[in-house]
Amino acid sequence: MLLLQFFIPKLAHSSYILAGDSTCAVIDPRRDVDIYLDAARSLDLEITHVIMTHLHADFVAGHMDLAELTGATIYAPRLGQCSFDHVSVGEGDEIVLEDMLLKVIDTPGHTPEHVSYIVVDTSRGNEPIGVFCGDTLFVGDVGRPDLFPGRADELARKLHSCLHEKLMRLPDFCEIYPLHAAGSLCGKAMAAKRRSTIGYERLYNAPLQIRDVEQFVPALTENMPSAPDHFGRSTVTNTRGPALVRTLPYPRPMSPRAFLEASKHEKAIVLDARTYEAFGAQHIPGAYSIDLDTNFPTFAGWILPPDRDILLVASTADDVDEAVTWLRRVGHDNTIAYLDGGMPAWARAGLQTGQVGQVSAIDLHRMLTTEPDTVVLDVRSTSEFEEGHIDRAVHIEVAQLRTRHGELDKDKKIVLVCRGGNRAMIAASLLKQRGFHNLTNLSGGMTGYSAAGFMKQH
Amino acid sequence: MLLLQFFIPKLAHSSYILAGDSTCAVIDPRRDVDIYLDAARSLDLEITHVIMTHLHADFVAGHMDLAELTGATIYAPRLGQCSFDHVSVGEGDEIVLEDMLLKVIDTPGHTPEHVSYIVVDTSRGNEPIGVFCGDTLFVGDVGRPDLFPGRADELARKLHSCLHEKLMRLPDFCEIYPLHAAGSLCGKAMAAKRRSTIGYERLYNAPLQIRDVEQFVPALTENMPSAPDHFGRSTVTNTRGPALVRTLPYPRPMSPRAFLEASKHEKAIVLDARTYEAFGAQHIPGAYSIDLDTNFPTFAGWILPPDRDILLVASTADDVDEAVTWLRRVGHDNTIAYLDGGMPAWARAGLQTGQVGQVSAIDLHRMLTTEPDTVVLDVRSTSEFEEGHIDRAVHIEVAQLRTRHGELDKDKKIVLVCRGGNRAMIAASLLKQRGFHNLTNLSGGMTGYSAAGFMKQH
Amino acid sequence: MLLLQFFIPKLAHSSYILAGDSTCAVIDPRRDVDIYLDAARSLDLEITHVIMTHLHADFVAGHMDLAELTGATIYAPRLGQCSFDHVSVGEGDEIVLEDMLLKVIDTPGHTPEHVSYIVVDTSRGNEPIGVFCGDTLFVGDVGRPDLFPGRADELARKLHSCLHEKLMRLPDFCEIYPLHAAGSLCGKAMAAKRRSTIGYERLYNAPLQIRDVEQFVPALTENMPSAPDHFGRSTVTNTRGPALVRTLPYPRPMSPRAFLEASKHEKAIVLDARTYEAFGAQHIPGAYSIDLDTNFPTFAGWILPPDRDILLVASTADDVDEAVTWLRRVGHDNTIAYLDGGMPAWARAGLQTGQVGQVSAIDLHRMLTTEPDTVVLDVRSTSEFEEGHIDRAVHIEVAQLRTRHGELDKDKKIVLVCRGGNRAMIAASLLKQRGFHNLTNLSGGMTGYSAAGFMKQH
Amino acid sequence: MLLLQFFIPKLAHSSYILAGDSTCAVIDPRRDVDIYLDAARSLDLEITHVIMTHLHADFVAGHMDLAELTGATIYAPRLGQCSFDHVSVGEGDEIVLEDMLLKVIDTPGHTPEHVSYIVVDTSRGNEPIGVFCGDTLFVGDVGRPDLFPGRADELARKLHSCLHEKLMRLPDFCEIYPLHAAGSLCGKAMAAKRRSTIGYERLYNAPLQIRDVEQFVPALTENMPSAPDHFGRSTVTNTRGPALVRTLPYPRPMSPRAFLEASKHEKAIVLDARTYEAFGAQHIPGAYSIDLDTNFPTFAGWILPPDRDILLVASTADDVDEAVTWLRRVGHDNTIAYLDGGMPAWARAGLQTGQVGQVSAIDLHRMLTTEPDTVVLDVRSTSEFEEGHIDRAVHIEVAQLRTRHGELDKDKKIVLVCRGGNRAMIAASLLKQRGFHNLTNLSGGMTGYSAAGFMKQH
Repeated sequence: MLLLQFFIPKLAHSSYILAGDSTCAVIDPRRDVDIYLDAARSLDLEITHVIMTHLHADFVAGHMDLAELTGATIYAPRLGQCSFDHVSVGEGDEIVLEDMLLKVIDTPGHTPEHVSYIVVDTSRGNEPIGVFCGDTLFVGDVGRPDLFPGRADELARKLHSCLHEKLMRLPDFCEIYPLHAAGSLCGKAMAAKRRSTIGYERLYNAPLQIRDVEQFVPALTENMPSAPDHFGRSTVTNTRGPALVRTLPYPRPMSPRAFLEASKHEKAIVLDARTYEAFGAQHIPGAYSIDLDTNFPTFAGWILPPDRDILLVASTADDVDEAVTWLRRVGHDNTIAYLDGGMPAWARAGLQTGQVGQVSAIDLHRMLTTEPDTVVLDVRSTSEFEEGHIDRAVHIEVAQLRTRHGELDKDKKIVLVCRGGNRAMIAASLLKQRGFHNLTNLSGGMTGYSAAGFMKQH
Repeated sequence: MLLLQFFIPKLAHSSYILAGDSTCAVIDPRRDVDIYLDAARSLDLEITHVIMTHLHADFVAGHMDLAELTGATIYAPRLGQCSFDHVSVGEGDEIVLEDMLLKVIDTPGHTPEHVSYIVVDTSRGNEPIGVFCGDTLFVGDVGRPDLFPGRADELARKLHSCLHEKLMRLPDFCEIYPLHAAGSLCGKAMAAKRRSTIGYERLYNAPLQIRDVEQFVPALTENMPSAPDHFGRSTVTNTRGPALVRTLPYPRPMSPRAFLEASKHEKAIVLDARTYEAFGAQHIPGAYSIDLDTNFPTFAGWILPPDRDILLVASTADDVDEAVTWLRRVGHDNTIAYLDGGMPAWARAGLQTGQVGQVSAIDLHRMLTTEPDTVVLDVRSTSEFEEGHIDRAVHIEVAQLRTRHGELDKDKKIVLVCRGGNRAMIAASLLKQRGFHNLTNLSGGMTGYSAAGFMKQH
Repeated sequence: MLLLQFFIPKLAHSSYILAGDSTCAVIDPRRDVDIYLDAARSLDLEITHVIMTHLHADFVAGHMDLAELTGATIYAPRLGQCSFDHVSVGEGDEIVLEDMLLKVIDTPGHTPEHVSYIVVDTSRGNEPIGVFCGDTLFVGDVGRPDLFPGRADELARKLHSCLHEKLMRLPDFCEIYPLHAAGSLCGKAMAAKRRSTIGYERLYNAPLQIRDVEQFVPALTENMPSAPDHFGRSTVTNTRGPALVRTLPYPRPMSPRAFLEASKHEKAIVLDARTYEAFGAQHIPGAYSIDLDTNFPTFAGWILPPDRDILLVASTADDVDEAVTWLRRVGHDNTIAYLDGGMPAWARAGLQTGQVGQVSAIDLHRMLTTEPDTVVLDVRSTSEFEEGHIDRAVHIEVAQLRTRHGELDKDKKIVLVCRGGNRAMIAASLLKQRGFHNLTNLSGGMTGYSAAGFMKQH
Repeated sequence: MLLLQFFIPKLAHSSYILAGDSTCAVIDPRRDVDIYLDAARSLDLEITHVIMTHLHADFVAGHMDLAELTGATIYAPRLGQCSFDHVSVGEGDEIVLEDMLLKVIDTPGHTPEHVSYIVVDTSRGNEPIGVFCGDTLFVGDVGRPDLFPGRADELARKLHSCLHEKLMRLPDFCEIYPLHAAGSLCGKAMAAKRRSTIGYERLYNAPLQIRDVEQFVPALTENMPSAPDHFGRSTVTNTRGPALVRTLPYPRPMSPRAFLEASKHEKAIVLDARTYEAFGAQHIPGAYSIDLDTNFPTFAGWILPPDRDILLVASTADDVDEAVTWLRRVGHDNTIAYLDGGMPAWARAGLQTGQVGQVSAIDLHRMLTTEPDTVVLDVRSTSEFEEGHIDRAVHIEVAQLRTRHGELDKDKKIVLVCRGGNRAMIAASLLKQRGFHNLTNLSGGMTGYSAAGFMKQH
């Protein structure tokens, strides 16, 4: 038995290859599946199983691509009622892979159909060696049960039940192979560590310490982090079976004038994936800013309207490629063009540009005194804001600006603040689309503001 | 806390990055350390600690390079008496890395100075989360204690003691982070799986089931796999501190005639890293064959005499690069030239070549009947040979041919047999150096012979 | 005006970008057109014209791909009667590209429809600055007129006429931009230099010195080099418009057993693109050998039957890619699979292999004395053979073995000889397909044999 | 004979390989010589000669590196009195390379020691086939003779003499292989085309039409383009023999705070190679801006003080690499560090930043009416400015701002204008170093301004 773990940052997504001597399974694959094909080839393994713990809310998975490219069989939870070819599994089912036995248990909670796979390596013994627990149990956290409108209470109770009546009955030494780590929005306080054991989590996992279900339910359903818009859409896509990546369009280069024309189409949106500083310097009026260096996929899923033709602005061909991959991972499949020559070419074509200025921590600190009317708008998450903020800052999370922008005065100067500088530029782009014009970005964000010594320690 | 595991195939070597929020330690680094620098950079981590469990016999480590490139401090076992700058550690010492505590325990056995590091993540709790146990405890196996001449009994007893009195006293849920997996010669029966837990190994690890030390000692010291020649040398090199990689020579291209002249120097040897089939087709007389696709580093450490100037024959520039990296990992630092244009250029220069023919499984099977005088020489390890072999095969392990070639008749036709075809070509090159001339290789080896249906199932 | 020349070795093919400030033309493009798109992008040029001098016999061109990818207009000779969308041009027509004027002249000879384009840079003056003369005039040679069966005399006379009455009337300083250089079979004695001038060629170009047409015709039509089989096919393909590269299959990896099954299909052939030494060591029985290091495209066009499904054996993924590109350049569009794991995997699957031994120059020289019955078969071109050969060598050009193999005795030992060793292996593969079994290759070929000092100087 | 031309953009530098069958010469090599080594290897050529036409003012050459790496002999003009090992040549000398003869002629003018090499391919005939004329004769122009203070008249006369009495006596068909093309400052009106012939230039080369030396001298010495600062330094470096590239420092990553400290050293300067838009958004106060997309090497040679330790700000590791290569090509050898994490990391460290805003063409056009006090400062070359400019623009060339900044009012708002937007940002960085604070950049420059329709056609 061999276990390989593949981690994507930003989505903080772990997938796995579980291999015997000549065949292997891929558990919860990412959508761009070359990495599994390469690993299997280098180890002389045939991919025969594609195994899904659930129908993922936060990303579009690669099960269809893998099955098509390898001929592998897809295993998916019975309750998911998937419409693609697959073997449906549920409590009590077993999958055999050479010497290994995968015992299916239903573990609803994060999603209603969620199952986990307990692995027994029969070549070594009959006790479980590990469990693919998907989004049920994380290192230091559990899967959030609040993503299905109106069902949070029900799902939280189911989660509590399957955690304590199923997973916690596994032996201490049993390894856990979760789907996410710190950075994912499928939980609220995951650790950075990517794997753990039943025994260690039994002792120290905070939600697991809440044995009383009546305390557990509010703890897991109230004051939860906001859920991005695509969390609903991705589940539907995964259940239906996503389009094969090889059938998707790849963006073609487009001259500035053609790009401008294309941007006028009602289905089109302009997405600028350059750094926040480049966007601030000059951008196409109306464009969305999502810096590739921030949590690009999550914000792309969150703030970009679905089913649009995306016109991309990026700095290099590599960045185009990277942006397209991330967009597909959250279900934005139609990136049809990129701006040939980038913004310098746009400017040389004499086309209109917009600007958002930067302010350094030092200069903002001075402005707090000299400019009493300037609004400081903090767009971080609630938990970040609560850990410390500039005294007079107004707080509206970035994605909420789409509905709460009316709370702000368009005529005032607004300094946008986030952790590092790039989420604030997303916010700026949303506000500019809504007619705000006097916006400045705190470059370096609260990280820089703190590093400069301007935050009092509480 | 974040843990990253880095695995090198062939040497089957695992090293680790253990990271906090901004700093990290590298445990038992490989000699080519870019992979750690890249990982640290992408995670915005500073490498501050380089930690050694012991002074590795099977590879030359990258502790000096990492320390020089990052300014990190090296931690090494006190009993190792290392001559480079370091902090020496032993039983009871503790290393603090942000929220993490590494508790040192002495775990002699595989080597006399071996220590292990128990990790406590104090941000989560006081119980141990895992242990860097180096070559003491593996998945399914323990470190072999027979590598120090005359000390096998003593070391086996110490190993037994530290396994049961120290490691087995850790809780079931504690993870183990070993240095090797299947393929390494530092044990004899490791699993492919690269990590495990104390509890699982307690149940199923075969040597751990031998509680009586008087049974344990012979089980771990008798009938052990052969140990490659470089196992002695590497420990000395690691203790002294290996030369920095950036100071080592990189091979220059050399024309066929210059290569021929250089090969006549008494310090020079010719190493042919091409596939076994290419070597068989034509090679420089006197060259060593070690196919890059076989366990190149182990055989390079084993059969190439130390401290020689290596003249390399390879198929591509990438292969030159790969060969140099592997050679350095086992302490062959002086690859001074490669043959410009490869063997085709050598042949076009009208220089002498040698040949070793290939025979397919089907043809060998026929020859067994038609050529009763032909010797079938199986050069695999004893354990492989014992699992099944051609009835009339003579068995001498490849590296032993250096001393046991006298048991063979130079005038007879010999068919060389290994698992896949490339170790047999190593053997052929060793025999040709000793005057054998009628050699044929079973291409595809016993794998092909079995696949063709010629092995009776026992 | 800017002129860029792009050269492909082996086919010895030159294509050109002729650019103004913002637009450019590509003249006689190769089939894989990324190189032009990249060059145009880096110079901020739009490709607006694709210009053909004639409908190339020796390669399949990229005019359709370029036009589809850029929207450029194709210009092709009127007499070619091309069936794709294009502007047809002939004597007296002019094409304007910014400041540049391309004056069309009919220059039949190499092919009946051939035109040349005289370039005038009107920003500098009215005299011609250069001429795209295709396969009419080369550096040191002229285009061969003998490729159309039964029309050699007619075309040679037309060639003589257009050379002297058109091209030689251009001024001395006028540059010539030919389509080929040394190595191409579209002439018989081209220089390595890739461009020249009218004046220099007027003085020193050998065929141009033959002013009497009655001497010119036999000189250009008798004792010409053999023409590869694909020379007929490519013209037809280019006239019809080749399939777009993006619509062609790309080979999928295939396991040894599946590859064996696929090879049994009547449309399938196995092509081994590995080095001659690897092919000799072991190959799939019935495979064609064409070493990527030899003139792979020309021999692929020559000896591989058209319209087959090609099953490829190569050493690396890069080699697969390179082979596919070359195959497409000569119209072999259906490379459907490659052998996953290469020949080592085939051998490990226990499948049958064939061998062809190598002999070094030194050993062959000895055999000439000790083995009087051994046949030495020289497969080089007639002109190479005539420049010097082993005394008792039989001469049959490699491609002619397909029809002349009956002249050889299958029961005799045959040593195959070419210049470097790889064409002889093509010959070996052809002979093995026809039942020859006692074949040996002179590795290093006559180059090595000469370098070893065994050729008397004449 | 084979001729390969290698072109570097920005410096607009052509170097050449002139090859026979097995050996070759490199003429006027660039400093980074891998490209020649690779070309020679792929053609199986040995580099035996390194040939210099003169001791180049505008770039540091690779003669020392090539000689050291290949053992080739350097040939350099006798009058250059070079201090490295070489064969010195002058009028009447001949160099033999296989069948080729290189006849040396003295061609002073651009520099006093300049020679040219007339090539005769004796395998074809005795007339010259081409001439390596360095910076004497270009396509459409001649080498500028005004670079040596006080010697312009003398050198212009010598140039006139050698052009008419030597080069123009070559036959029409003789090819010319010049060192530069459009974009170089070694002439004032070169064509983009990279090669030509004697006859064509005789007819259309503008300076060659000025037969009267008394008209020629002022035409070539008055109103010449400005010469960058490094033009003097490079000649000295080339004469002495530049340091070997492999001995030069390569920049190490440096954290923001360490970078800040290092920047305070009196030998240190900060060079920002990012796009003009990124520099404008935020930059380290005091940094030089030179956008990699502009003529980076020329401006680096021009405005950066020599012999400084360069601290580099770039966007990617590839950009660091590219910047270092360009800097070395103009003799800036000490790039000792780059900012790890780039400007986003600097901002997150809470360090001070500076800003220069962008204005679009449309907005500037409106400002011309609404802001009568705003200064429009055009920093293009005189010839560009004279071709058309905004009516009220003040003109000072970018490099001259170092001395002429006093002509501007620090308290006024200044909009900086160049062709595309990046030279204006160089200017902004120079002005900010001198205390200007109210600067805005016309993004897209005059190109965008014209494209937007705001320039009246004259």
